[in-house]
Amino acid sequence: MEATMPKVNQERLLRMHKYWNAANYLTIGQIYLKENPLLKQPLRPEHIKPRLLGHWGTSPGLSFIYTHLNRLIQDNNIDMIYLTGPGHGGPAIIAQVYLEGTYTEVYPQVTQDVEGMRHLFRQFSSPGGVPSHVSVTTPGSIHEGGELGYVLSHAFGAAFDSPNLIVAAVVGDGEAETAPLEGAWKGIKFLNPVRDGAVLPILHLNGYKISGPTVLGRAEDEEIQKLLTGHGYEVFYVEGSEPMKVHQAFADTLDVCYSKIRAYQADARQNGFSKRPSWPVIILRTPKGWTGPREVDGLPIEGTFRAHQVPVADVRENPAHLQILENWMRSYKPEEIFDNSGRLIAELADLAPKGDRRMGANPHANGGKLRVELEIPSYNNYAFEVKKPATQRQESTRPFGKMMRDIYKLNSKVHNFRLFCPDETNSNRLGDVFDVENRCLVEKIIPIDDHVSPNGRVMEVLSEHLCQGWLEGFLLTGRHGIFATYEAFAMVSDSMTVQHSKWLQEGSKLPWRAPISSLNILLTSTCWRNDHNGFSHQGPGLIDTVLSKKGTVARIYLPPDSNCLLSIADHCLHSCNYVNLIVIDKQAHLQYLNMDEAVDHCNRGLSIWKWASNDDKLEPDVVLASAGDVPTLETIAAAHWLRHHIPEMKVRVVNVVDLMTLYPPYFHPHGMSDAAFIEHFTTNKPVIFAFHGYQRAIHEVIHGRPNTPRFHVRGFMEEGTTTTPFDMVVLNGMSRYHLCIEAMKRAPRVHSLTPPLIEKCNDMLKKHYSYVREHLEDMPEIANWVWTD
Amino acid sequence: MEATMPKVNQERLLRMHKYWNAANYLTIGQIYLKENPLLKQPLRPEHIKPRLLGHWGTSPGLSFIYTHLNRLIQDNNIDMIYLTGPGHGGPAIIAQVYLEGTYTEVYPQVTQDVEGMRHLFRQFSSPGGVPSHVSVTTPGSIHEGGELGYVLSHAFGAAFDSPNLIVAAVVGDGEAETAPLEGAWKGIKFLNPVRDGAVLPILHLNGYKISGPTVLGRAEDEEIQKLLTGHGYEVFYVEGSEPMKVHQAFADTLDVCYSKIRAYQADARQNGFSKRPSWPVIILRTPKGWTGPREVDGLPIEGTFRAHQVPVADVRENPAHLQILENWMRSYKPEEIFDNSGRLIAELADLAPKGDRRMGANPHANGGKLRVELEIPSYNNYAFEVKKPATQRQESTRPFGKMMRDIYKLNSKVHNFRLFCPDETNSNRLGDVFDVENRCLVEKIIPIDDHVSPNGRVMEVLSEHLCQGWLEGFLLTGRHGIFATYEAFAMVSDSMTVQHSKWLQEGSKLPWRAPISSLNILLTSTCWRNDHNGFSHQGPGLIDTVLSKKGTVARIYLPPDSNCLLSIADHCLHSCNYVNLIVIDKQAHLQYLNMDEAVDHCNRGLSIWKWASNDDKLEPDVVLASAGDVPTLETIAAAHWLRHHIPEMKVRVVNVVDLMTLYPPYFHPHGMSDAAFIEHFTTNKPVIFAFHGYQRAIHEVIHGRPNTPRFHVRGFMEEGTTTTPFDMVVLNGMSRYHLCIEAMKRAPRVHSLTPPLIEKCNDMLKKHYSYVREHLEDMPEIANWVWTD
Repeated sequence: MEATMPKVNQERLLRMHKYWNAANYLTIGQIYLKENPLLKQPLRPEHIKPRLLGHWGTSPGLSFIYTHLNRLIQDNNIDMIYLTGPGHGGPAIIAQVYLEGTYTEVYPQVTQDVEGMRHLFRQFSSPGGVPSHVSVTTPGSIHEGGELGYVLSHAFGAAFDSPNLIVAAVVGDGEAETAPLEGAWKGIKFLNPVRDGAVLPILHLNGYKISGPTVLGRAEDEEIQKLLTGHGYEVFYVEGSEPMKVHQAFADTLDVCYSKIRAYQADARQNGFSKRPSWPVIILRTPKGWTGPREVDGLPIEGTFRAHQVPVADVRENPAHLQILENWMRSYKPEEIFDNSGRLIAELADLAPKGDRRMGANPHANGGKLRVELEIPSYNNYAFEVKKPATQRQESTRPFGKMMRDIYKLNSKVHNFRLFCPDETNSNRLGDVFDVENRCLVEKIIPIDDHVSPNGRVMEVLSEHLCQGWLEGFLLTGRHGIFATYEAFAMVSDSMTVQHSKWLQEGSKLPWRAPISSLNILLTSTCWRNDHNGFSHQGPGLIDTVLSKKGTVARIYLPPDSNCLLSIADHCLHSCNYVNLIVIDKQAHLQYLNMDEAVDHCNRGLSIWKWASNDDKLEPDVVLASAGDVPTLETIAAAHWLRHHIPEMKVRVVNVVDLMTLYPPYFHPHGMSDAAFIEHFTTNKPVIFAFHGYQRAIHEVIHGRPNTPRFHVRGFMEEGTTTTPFDMVVLNGMSRYHLCIEAMKRAPRVHSLTPPLIEKCNDMLKKHYSYVREHLEDMPEIANWVWTD
Repeated sequence: MEATMPKVNQERLLRMHKYWNAANYLTIGQIYLKENPLLKQPLRPEHIKPRLLGHWGTSPGLSFIYTHLNRLIQDNNIDMIYLTGPGHGGPAIIAQVYLEGTYTEVYPQVTQDVEGMRHLFRQFSSPGGVPSHVSVTTPGSIHEGGELGYVLSHAFGAAFDSPNLIVAAVVGDGEAETAPLEGAWKGIKFLNPVRDGAVLPILHLNGYKISGPTVLGRAEDEEIQKLLTGHGYEVFYVEGSEPMKVHQAFADTLDVCYSKIRAYQADARQNGFSKRPSWPVIILRTPKGWTGPREVDGLPIEGTFRAHQVPVADVRENPAHLQILENWMRSYKPEEIFDNSGRLIAELADLAPKGDRRMGANPHANGGKLRVELEIPSYNNYAFEVKKPATQRQESTRPFGKMMRDIYKLNSKVHNFRLFCPDETNSNRLGDVFDVENRCLVEKIIPIDDHVSPNGRVMEVLSEHLCQGWLEGFLLTGRHGIFATYEAFAMVSDSMTVQHSKWLQEGSKLPWRAPISSLNILLTSTCWRNDHNGFSHQGPGLIDTVLSKKGTVARIYLPPDSNCLLSIADHCLHSCNYVNLIVIDKQAHLQYLNMDEAVDHCNRGLSIWKWASNDDKLEPDVVLASAGDVPTLETIAAAHWLRHHIPEMKVRVVNVVDLMTLYPPYFHPHGMSDAAFIEHFTTNKPVIFAFHGYQRAIHEVIHGRPNTPRFHVRGFMEEGTTTTPFDMVVLNGMSRYHLCIEAMKRAPRVHSLTPPLIEKCNDMLKKHYSYVREHLEDMPEIANWVWTD
């Protein structure tokens, strides 16, 4: 096939070279100039920005690839997006999107003329302008590239169930050193050529990071060949520093890769899936800061780490440096590529694809435009009938697994939903999805495998980074999904959660970005019920991470039972532009609310549970509040104990399902009014709060509410091991007996009655201690406790 | 070399097989039995634990490898430790450590007889016993393996500068899917055969995770071969399910690998380093749950995912299952391997290495025993002379770079210090270390490289996971170091910080574990001064993560200037068993305290800065508090502004360098008394607190202090972009003008004077806004602000 393919001719390559020159010129302009954008006058210090920001080193390579992909798209009418791993090469991508016209369509003030170019330059990395990275403000981008490591997982996520899409993903050799990137090469083991699109990774080796050489930049071709062949790819090399030769080689290589991709797809789509293709990957070795200054002050620049950021500094103060900059910029011959008005000449402008085929305008990169609303079955179908609160048990996540099963079914025409999970779907009691969907693996399947198929859409891989990165890519291109994982190990990818929150926060400010589905993170196997796995598995830290994120984006839900989970999940799956953190344990737990009560409770975010209270609308002696399933169990057990042992004490039980309702309304849109807060928590009565997460976090949430020192929070205080469930709450001082003691100590009206009862609670704790150590299990009366009123 | 090596003879292999049987027997006993440990009676339901916990699937493979490494150690007198990636195979390693006698030495109650065996079984995964994972309580372990991904980075960290040590690192095929593990294969590119020890990775493929097949388990040998050859290894395969054949093959392969390791080292040590060796790696493919039940209830178990945890459940209730268990246990012939008293027969006990050569007793795995105190030069050598507070600038981290340079020099005989950093040592202004040390890269070096050498001990790799994992391995084996990284991207590895905190917390409770050096994390390039890099680089989240960790372990320091950093760093480098988080920006900042004042300030943790206050020991109208360099700048600028514009107002300036001093003393050992708290913050005056981290976190820290609602915290509120430094504090409402406004609004005594001054502050903010958007830089009078009293 390679032999017969017509090559891109020299004339066209020369025009492409000029187009690339234009992009490089605009890149340098963004880094350096605030005036005189077309260099119509000799460069003077006052034309230079006061502060030089931006990364030149990677930029020419990024532009080079973009220019060539434009050609490939034009020749083949390809639906393609471009993911910029080296996202700090922002000015290069902005330059390209500007040249193809998308930028001006999105930001009309940045016109395609001298004045627009001046604006383009001045806005870059300036207050009120655009950030220095390829980011949410860059048309065509679904990937920031500030925190390195995720370009390939985002790329594969975008390609899943986008059969016609090709995702070009540029991997810098710096990023290639990161663990998340190395872990993401295996995406092709989950990519089905029949139903999914393709990812074309372009590993761009320019040899250096900020100041040191890179591992792959320094590796022999043969080693890289083996490494990537070992991952399952076919490797193509393009290497050089002489532009015209590299142009020819890269164009030819792209043609070969493209035809291979289409051949694999055509074969699989016509003849059915037979085996995983050896998808192509391109290794492009070019100098860092290519076409930039060779030398400054006697030190080599081009091809070295010194080209990483701003290769010529002090241009305002140093006339020799100013001259180097001017010569450098003029080397691209701006007068030949832009007309007198500052517009790219037509002969070059023709090189960009048209309309939505422009990578900056491709709707996949503004996924909300392609988003089809998810069909979600009514939660009533999975409702658990609660005959009496706190008397029946079930695994709280199992009904939600059934709901997801039906979501898969209902949306099986559009295939716009996937569940991502590190090999725990069954363990998390979500296994009903396997009634209709398989696990995905595009490798050899053997008879003893359980629900594994290349056609599966349950994405299980033992990598939180991959699960989350794939889901983010899937969402950013307009689809829906859930990441379900162990609570403690959600921390493995919490930095991705932070970065995605930032993306959504900025994206929701841009009217041209259509809303995308929320990132839904379901944490099961929580700290309280990893009694069997031990201390490493006990950590509710993601709550703290999400708590600090912006109210416009961050949501945290702690449904106490399965009906509440159904209601919350329904809400989250309909929502857009949020990070929804849902925390609920998978084990059999007491159930509290019928479906309609659960919906009402979740809509309010919190409510008083009258059946567990005995304050009868009076001012209570104490409020027992809880958030989370295990804390709720301990709280209602405590309320039960207090009712029986000290009926004179008026106890109000409040359950919080939406943690953000506790924030003051000026801090979070879910924050309830002070009046509502007082309605639940009174103005001055002691509140004993049993919290799922780290003990003291509640105090940061409720600051600003009336009389906060009266809140006494019990929660996870980083005590744990392999033990029994009840011992976990004892170790962390959150057991029902601890709550009772705290309540009795804090309630002044009944003080005289409490000393013997406090003693009774302490006795129970002692009894527990000796029992579990003798019997190696929970005391039956504790393990089987239910409400008995 | 392979051809001439004498093979391990059959008789010995048979004995080794019995030893392995013993370990497997003890593994199953730990999972199942609470009585009848030697099966002297037929198994009855009451012998079975009430709750079956533990992971059988990986255990026989782990024991198999351990048994063989024992043989290799005995034959060659090797200094070797064993890192168990599949840490959930805890009972297998506990069994081995028990068999070799270490366990009884460390835990004398677990004797080598029937009663001790009963204790061993009962304690496993039981309340008050030992956790189910290989963990800090397991002698010989420096690696938990609960959160998968870090076994290879810990292994390489342990091998650095341990020339005689060989680290056997077992990688499960589940863990092999994680990103941190995939990223860690490249450790050999940083391992120098002259001065470092060796890592022998053993990739143990048993095909399945919890319920799905694994990527490498399903890959063809040829692909794995290429992948690992591509990483630079020489690959050796051992595969099979027939034990005696696999014994022979594995023993032979270990001999070959060992001789290769020693040959590479001998060559490099005799002839000098020439090139990176192709270090051996072993791929061991054996069935999951090897030697376990073939089938239960008609479903295949051995070799399938069903063997992952407890392969036969309900043994108390189901007599057929009980019989399967008994047959299974008896298949190991306990009566032939243990004598009547329950002791391993002498013929088998002989197979274990002796003394410190036992992997459970190797001092590298209890690194504190090998720890040599670090020589730290006096901080006075690097002190900055502050002529007048807040009038001189310097890059706050640069003197600390000089201190580290001298630490490298002073400890150059023991080589027990390394700096780990993702390619930012220079960028973080720590580059003075390059006066005496190079960056490490055990690859081709070329002339334009800057301070790069295979002999370098500055570890730069663009992977937070590798930097931190290597450092943890280095510390756990008794050395010292620092991980310096960008603040935002410290979140990439924050889950490792959590897990290491847990390790230290549990370890410090064990008298037999000698203290190890603290994990020191230095965050430079902070959120406030990533104005040039933009929003993705702006995130102080690690503070929240560390705040929630136990007071016995967690420390957070926010030195306001370079002398304070020196004092804090000196303290942290001397300390043991802590996670010390130090946050300070690298840019040129105002300096406040002379060295002696800095030491005093840091010892106290916080103090009143009298030179910036005007309350003259009276009760102030308002307290201006700060923690962090940029917040301190804004706070003292605010104090300055208030003094000049409203001298009637009495302002006290408090600076907090040790964040944990704010915690109540019952919550953190650094927590100051309420009396000290009141001395600084009064009982009831408004406190305007400028905080480096997320705005509301202070409230969780100060809960329990007098009258906390009077604290008004300004901090990072997740607002950012590429802009100017001052604009960052404006965007987040923490600028000096915001602080002044808040102070004036909160100070009732001067209310009548404040309205025009509040207006003046608002005018300044407006002026800032228009200035930076016009000039693209900070207003000079703000950027150059110094104290002028």
